[in-house]
Amino acid sequence: MVNIAVLGYGTVGSGVVRVLTTNQEKIDKKAGVPVRIKYVLDLRDFPGDPVQEKIVHDYNVILNDPEIKVVVEVMGGLKPAYDFTKAAIMAGKSVCTSNKELVAEYGSELLELAREKNVNYMFEASCGGGIPVIRPLNSSLTAEDIDEVSGILNGTTNYILSEMTEKGSDFNDALKEAKALGYAERNPEADVEGYDACRKIAILSSLAFGKTVKYSKIHTEGITKITPEDITFAKEADMAIKLLASAYKDVKEDGTEDYYAMVAPFLVRHGHPLYNVNGVFNAVFIHGNMLGDTMFYGSGAGSTPTASAVVADVVDAVRHLNRSLYVFWDQDELTLSDNGSHVRPFFIRVPAEKKEEAAKLFNAEKTVESSDIPSEAALITAFMQENEFRKKCEEAGYVISSIRVNV
Amino acid sequence: MVNIAVLGYGTVGSGVVRVLTTNQEKIDKKAGVPVRIKYVLDLRDFPGDPVQEKIVHDYNVILNDPEIKVVVEVMGGLKPAYDFTKAAIMAGKSVCTSNKELVAEYGSELLELAREKNVNYMFEASCGGGIPVIRPLNSSLTAEDIDEVSGILNGTTNYILSEMTEKGSDFNDALKEAKALGYAERNPEADVEGYDACRKIAILSSLAFGKTVKYSKIHTEGITKITPEDITFAKEADMAIKLLASAYKDVKEDGTEDYYAMVAPFLVRHGHPLYNVNGVFNAVFIHGNMLGDTMFYGSGAGSTPTASAVVADVVDAVRHLNRSLYVFWDQDELTLSDNGSHVRPFFIRVPAEKKEEAAKLFNAEKTVESSDIPSEAALITAFMQENEFRKKCEEAGYVISSIRVNV
Repeated sequence: MVNIAVLGYGTVGSGVVRVLTTNQEKIDKKAGVPVRIKYVLDLRDFPGDPVQEKIVHDYNVILNDPEIKVVVEVMGGLKPAYDFTKAAIMAGKSVCTSNKELVAEYGSELLELAREKNVNYMFEASCGGGIPVIRPLNSSLTAEDIDEVSGILNGTTNYILSEMTEKGSDFNDALKEAKALGYAERNPEADVEGYDACRKIAILSSLAFGKTVKYSKIHTEGITKITPEDITFAKEADMAIKLLASAYKDVKEDGTEDYYAMVAPFLVRHGHPLYNVNGVFNAVFIHGNMLGDTMFYGSGAGSTPTASAVVADVVDAVRHLNRSLYVFWDQDELTLSDNGSHVRPFFIRVPAEKKEEAAKLFNAEKTVESSDIPSEAALITAFMQENEFRKKCEEAGYVISSIRVNV
Repeated sequence: MVNIAVLGYGTVGSGVVRVLTTNQEKIDKKAGVPVRIKYVLDLRDFPGDPVQEKIVHDYNVILNDPEIKVVVEVMGGLKPAYDFTKAAIMAGKSVCTSNKELVAEYGSELLELAREKNVNYMFEASCGGGIPVIRPLNSSLTAEDIDEVSGILNGTTNYILSEMTEKGSDFNDALKEAKALGYAERNPEADVEGYDACRKIAILSSLAFGKTVKYSKIHTEGITKITPEDITFAKEADMAIKLLASAYKDVKEDGTEDYYAMVAPFLVRHGHPLYNVNGVFNAVFIHGNMLGDTMFYGSGAGSTPTASAVVADVVDAVRHLNRSLYVFWDQDELTLSDNGSHVRPFFIRVPAEKKEEAAKLFNAEKTVESSDIPSEAALITAFMQENEFRKKCEEAGYVISSIRVNV
């Protein structure tokens, strides 16, 4: 038997208990031994709850119990999760987590420490909830030279944008509805401003490119400025507006490599696999030089989907006690290039009477009109550097709004 | 350094050489040691080809060379692939394959043998080409009780159906185009009759349910009977016709489990993740009791995508020399229930004048008409057992065509 401890009995923690209880037989078979929860650490008591007897308030009980081989950290936040994780690894215990803040901030350090101690630090649930994407990046796409990872990594914003697209509602109404349905938190800033997606793409791009991508260096925009007018014209252009968290590698003519990362709203063309990822669902699109396009789709959040990913890590940790699984993420920082030099098309809205002028200035690939908004036109520019695009917008002076176009 | 041998220098075999050469540096880093091809087994010679010096015609050269730790079997077919694979495993070599026929027929036996010999038999590329789905099934969805695996597992048929949907062409014209583009073989029977997809779902369902699903027991229908009229009415109903290879688990009221498997054309509703998988792309949809819906999407075939999956297995095999990775697939056969007892809705086309009568008889959920085909109507029946549905069709006597509806 392998005993584990769960730190935090909130949404994910209670999900972990539920997954382990409901699918106990299957999980034990796959782990090779029975996996049992011995302790649940929480500040609160839970009288009457099935875990009532397992609740402890002092982390040292867990840390000093040699029977505990795996610690599940689902508290979230940096403090005290960082100290708890470090202490567990130092004590020779593997740690499985859903804590994206911690992985994005200290992932490479904790991985290094785990390697030294011959245990594992695992974080499948930190990006895209229950979607298996970390493990494929580590062990299925090993023959690939990955040049793009683009994800819809936040369910709240994707729900809001889907609502705006389907019902024509504005951002605030859609946010209100998301809150009412429990898809948005009372303080939704981390979601709607893109901070949550930023942590996740930092983790995914670090794994894809093998060096540490610092989330603080990733340009991040949210969706608060997206209007129903943007969505109307995007539809006319047969595209959907999505909050994408993306990282790219560009190989320049001289063979050197440029890396870019960004969280921002993008227009996604119909036919692209991410176009149809709607509602609270998440997806991660990956392009490799041999494999071409691939995509992983599923529930990006929620108690049991996220817990299912955590427990999959626990099973793996149990199968590999005292054997460190290799994860390709160096502590060296990956230098990101200035997004200003990234080349792509842009979507802009302009006053109707400026349509022709703008089409010429931006070398437009496509112009669209909407009978609902006759006073405006929208166009998709030619491929151009972002810096050049900004300069042209300034020069024009009449651009109402602009959104990047995913290619 | 680890030396490997490639059996068969065809489409996939040459892809394996290309992947290993192009991404050599990355692959060596991930494998932990340089991975080099020492032999390529083929009946032909390839003068002037980069592998010219490595070509051997006698398998014993490979078998008797203790330096060869991993054998890549990409010959296809059962003979001599089965004997070659068995001999390699007996000689203590791991085998990585893209050979779905062999895995579907002898997978459990070869896995068992590999376990005994402490080596690995790996087949990521056997289902869905480059899409990582075998490894997620084995190691990411370990906390799940999986109750459905449904896939678009054949690129040729998906291309044909996509063409018929987009262009209104009939089956034969679309097949002709697929042949012209190299998406269909000269003898396309294995694809269009569903035999290829059948092998793949046998493998996926064996892994999902943990026991051997025999492909010969899976009811298999192809797409040759699908007409432009079916597609016109499916569109009117806001659905797409896809060749699905599916396996389900039904838990009955008394707690016992029924398993079903089938390859057949299905109507897939708009909004389902499989609805938008078009052209030669493949996808595997999985539903688990904790995770909910998840989907894996990508290139289901092609030289380098398939080879990328083979090489990912090679990297894993090299990292785990002399350590058997556990795969949950017992030799016991899983008993499949009669599809006649499976409950679902059906799509039928009837003469226009029978519309009301049919709606009553089949307890229709939805009726659709098409201005292009005024002489007919189509309807989606209520959920009913397939046996009951067939009986009603016979009773009616006027049903023009029928297709199952995916739920």
